[in-house]
Amino acid sequence: MSENLVLVNGEIMLQEEAFIDVNDRGHNFGDGVFEIVPVYNGRCFALLPHMNNLFESVIHAKIPGVYMIEELVEFHEELIKATGLNDCEIYTQITRGSGAYSLAYPEQCVPNLTMYAVPVDRAKLAEKRAKGVNIITEEDLRWEHCDLNSLNRMPEAIARQKAFIGNAFEALFVRDGKITEATEGSFFIYKDGILWTHPEDKHIHKNITRRLLMERLAGELDLQIIERAFDKEFACKAEEAFICGPRYEFMPVTKIDRTFINGGKVGTMVPAIESAYLNFVAQECPSK
Amino acid sequence: MSENLVLVNGEIMLQEEAFIDVNDRGHNFGDGVFEIVPVYNGRCFALLPHMNNLFESVIHAKIPGVYMIEELVEFHEELIKATGLNDCEIYTQITRGSGAYSLAYPEQCVPNLTMYAVPVDRAKLAEKRAKGVNIITEEDLRWEHCDLNSLNRMPEAIARQKAFIGNAFEALFVRDGKITEATEGSFFIYKDGILWTHPEDKHIHKNITRRLLMERLAGELDLQIIERAFDKEFACKAEEAFICGPRYEFMPVTKIDRTFINGGKVGTMVPAIESAYLNFVAQECPSK
Repeated sequence: MSENLVLVNGEIMLQEEAFIDVNDRGHNFGDGVFEIVPVYNGRCFALLPHMNNLFESVIHAKIPGVYMIEELVEFHEELIKATGLNDCEIYTQITRGSGAYSLAYPEQCVPNLTMYAVPVDRAKLAEKRAKGVNIITEEDLRWEHCDLNSLNRMPEAIARQKAFIGNAFEALFVRDGKITEATEGSFFIYKDGILWTHPEDKHIHKNITRRLLMERLAGELDLQIIERAFDKEFACKAEEAFICGPRYEFMPVTKIDRTFINGGKVGTMVPAIESAYLNFVAQECPSK
Repeated sequence: MSENLVLVNGEIMLQEEAFIDVNDRGHNFGDGVFEIVPVYNGRCFALLPHMNNLFESVIHAKIPGVYMIEELVEFHEELIKATGLNDCEIYTQITRGSGAYSLAYPEQCVPNLTMYAVPVDRAKLAEKRAKGVNIITEEDLRWEHCDLNSLNRMPEAIARQKAFIGNAFEALFVRDGKITEATEGSFFIYKDGILWTHPEDKHIHKNITRRLLMERLAGELDLQIIERAFDKEFACKAEEAFICGPRYEFMPVTKIDRTFINGGKVGTMVPAIESAYLNFVAQECPSK
């Protein structure tokens, strides 16, 4: 058993032995898509919705279908078993494949699939959730198709690095004065019994954790949701704020740039949502 | 001598043997930059300006400097010699390097350099120049930093594929109603003795062929240049239109979407610019 395993085109190998063709279009043009699935107790959480999300991006990007969802489900299970990582995230990346240098797609291009498990320190994340995190805002310089989970993630990397340097947990994108989302999660605020978030359009990623909140957890907690773009000023007047995504679960935000939310303290609503989420996770991913 | 050679981190090898780490940030996030240098008679054309351009992108993207310009110059010469390709383009790509999965930059990240020669059929390009090409317009969905030659090129690939399917030579991006540039070249129109083009801002690439035209060839041909964004309607009323870049030289455009330029015929000004360009190339890259 080794944590450093990578699955390349269906075959599991040591990371040191896993390579990609220099002509892979992911390497040259970021011409591919990705998805991240959280794993609890050795079981993938909401695997099918995540795979549907991945396939939506594959189809949107017109990448030829090579693997069936059932095969990807199997690959997830194989990777968990082979790495022995019971708490992790599984990162899946599908590029259009390799071909001679050309922006237009090569005629016979076979997509390349790369998958690996990223270890997660959930105890450390829980500590962060208990204290809340500070985030910075950054101008949203991304392209107009953020709903496609593309590998063109340089703007996210640049923004995230700025957050890291500024000792912040995340960077929140602002486009035309309105908050869109964080580099790896959806942004919500809570105010007067209502959750506010950016509508699901071309400017935000399709996020399964966000969808789970909206379609299931909000109902359990009797929360109303308004999908409408809002600015930082509005966000800073919220009672609570949080980022959610497969890598964070529901992370309370207690400071945006220099402004404290709720006096810099974690409120009660975000922990309640997190708790409802963990209940659902416990049902779906019971310990083995 | 073999055409299928790749230079990876300073070492020349067969393409079949050239691989990149699956954790390379170019592969995962398109986190890197590129440049293309045209080669005539076994000599690089305008190599230093192109390398300065590349280094501007490297610095802008905060990629640690590993190679000096002098080394890259040497690598270009080695690749030409090893491949025996006297007429080609040399593609150079520098990614931030490999590291554990994280949007923020890994602490010790050593950039990966990939270079290879792309063969060019200049006789075929000359035939196209003689007839002129048709192009399509596409909404410019790219990010806000097109001045950085980043590897985030999925929108270019999608637009170029649409052009290919529509039997067009190139796709012209239109942002907020104004033409910015083609996927691999700058766009100009000629009208009443004046060349019009989009100003050099964050929405277009830094293009050495464009700069050569503006700083040298235009003066030789007594052409005035106006850098101002214009729409498709204005472009379609031009006497002549062209795309220029290291891969095209000066390519006359005779049709945009369904509208012919100059009745669908190549005019006299674009061939005159091409001729001035070739004279300069002949001086800089004499046959050996």
